[in-house]
Amino acid sequence: MKEKIHSSFKQQGLMSHLEARITFIEEGIVKISCPYSNAITQQNGYFHAGVITSIVDVACGYAALSTMPAESDVLTVEFKVNFMRPTQTEEIIAVGRVVKSGKRIVVCEGEVIDADNKEVARMLATMIPISTTNVL
Amino acid sequence: MKEKIHSSFKQQGLMSHLEARITFIEEGIVKISCPYSNAITQQNGYFHAGVITSIVDVACGYAALSTMPAESDVLTVEFKVNFMRPTQTEEIIAVGRVVKSGKRIVVCEGEVIDADNKEVARMLATMIPISTTNVL
Amino acid sequence: MKEKIHSSFKQQGLMSHLEARITFIEEGIVKISCPYSNAITQQNGYFHAGVITSIVDVACGYAALSTMPAESDVLTVEFKVNFMRPTQTEEIIAVGRVVKSGKRIVVCEGEVIDADNKEVARMLATMIPISTTNVL
Amino acid sequence: MKEKIHSSFKQQGLMSHLEARITFIEEGIVKISCPYSNAITQQNGYFHAGVITSIVDVACGYAALSTMPAESDVLTVEFKVNFMRPTQTEEIIAVGRVVKSGKRIVVCEGEVIDADNKEVARMLATMIPISTTNVL
Repeated sequence: MKEKIHSSFKQQGLMSHLEARITFIEEGIVKISCPYSNAITQQNGYFHAGVITSIVDVACGYAALSTMPAESDVLTVEFKVNFMRPTQTEEIIAVGRVVKSGKRIVVCEGEVIDADNKEVARMLATMIPISTTNVL
Repeated sequence: MKEKIHSSFKQQGLMSHLEARITFIEEGIVKISCPYSNAITQQNGYFHAGVITSIVDVACGYAALSTMPAESDVLTVEFKVNFMRPTQTEEIIAVGRVVKSGKRIVVCEGEVIDADNKEVARMLATMIPISTTNVL
Repeated sequence: MKEKIHSSFKQQGLMSHLEARITFIEEGIVKISCPYSNAITQQNGYFHAGVITSIVDVACGYAALSTMPAESDVLTVEFKVNFMRPTQTEEIIAVGRVVKSGKRIVVCEGEVIDADNKEVARMLATMIPISTTNVL
Repeated sequence: MKEKIHSSFKQQGLMSHLEARITFIEEGIVKISCPYSNAITQQNGYFHAGVITSIVDVACGYAALSTMPAESDVLTVEFKVNFMRPTQTEEIIAVGRVVKSGKRIVVCEGEVIDADNKEVARMLATMIPISTTNVL
């Protein structure tokens, strides 16, 4: 399961461009870190809401995948994110956790903290298992 | 107002990295396009949910800003996005529209379509005016 | 299809309690109105956010159901609602519309207006078809 | 602060009609219970998503209010709720907790459990302090 997630993660062009990496995988929980760089800024030099969202979406998605049958891939149906404070620390860390893993729907919550351990954002997300990516 | 938005957009490292550009600005409505590239993919080669979210967040943010007093900057309080279908067309276009512009809260909706004019995602977002970015 | 929706609606104790009624059904769109009464107030005499949400959830749910196979029932997976202004007009009207009807997921948007035709709230919701209610 | 919340709660017609009551108040956390009755059902006899939402919205709102300056009232800007399982136990209990209390924005999360201690729903909400209810 860890290999499958690491292998899938490597294929994500966005994650590679953001220099993000997986730092923790266990059933139902995945952590991803993303360093500060020119690629991640919004207009005032803070981490972009889109970057914060991207890494916590991936953390939640793989947390969901870790609870699904082996042959599954995962698709984000929707998510909602609240942004608590701007940050420009040297890195941010996203934690994705499965709240409820059902056959059809997996609900996840995500949290993003900065290098000072302050909460930057919180996500509530809905994921589904798929066998191919065009079965919505 | 258009100059202010273009100038702010240029300072966004993420937007530059994604090769996104503003294609339309009017009071209460902003459009942003993003081409397909290695930087935007998820594990199956589709546009990443995080990229789709990033450009429609920016479109909604500047749509909100276009209705705020001249000295304001804009901050995303939260958003929710539904993803309707995976896409790997040559570009995606995000449209951000103001639904309700209040003194304290601006509500926006966003839509992302692909090059075949199919709806890829829909956003409902809450923005606030700020004078500096640390006044949450 | 209209009979099925009317019949289902009648079984909703909450809707009866709120004196809500269906005013329009077409494939992919349903409208529900709810009159002002003692049962619907929050602490300042305005329509309660929970009431506004209840009727637009039902409008979206039946709009979704109207696009599903005949033997389906519908379940709300999640929704998000923005509240635009407090209102205490003599009634509110919720409109639920299907944005994307897929085999596994139906995305809906809802709008609530008051008797002065002002927008009170907007919803973005995810519905799924079910055959029985315990198959999450 | 507790008196203010209890007194405000009593003025909510909806809460009275649902027979809901406050069972716990502390700074940043409020619990509300709601018994099963004819008033709370959806079409299959389960607790209505709108009822579940109503009580957890109120729990989050008062949790937010408990962290605001004494002269404030509270307004729900928006919320998102995921529904995890249908329930028809004898009561449901909503817990609202403040995640981040800022001067302009208060972020809350809510959880609803049933009488078997199973999680029924989860909310992520944005609240604002107001002095009167028409200052959006």
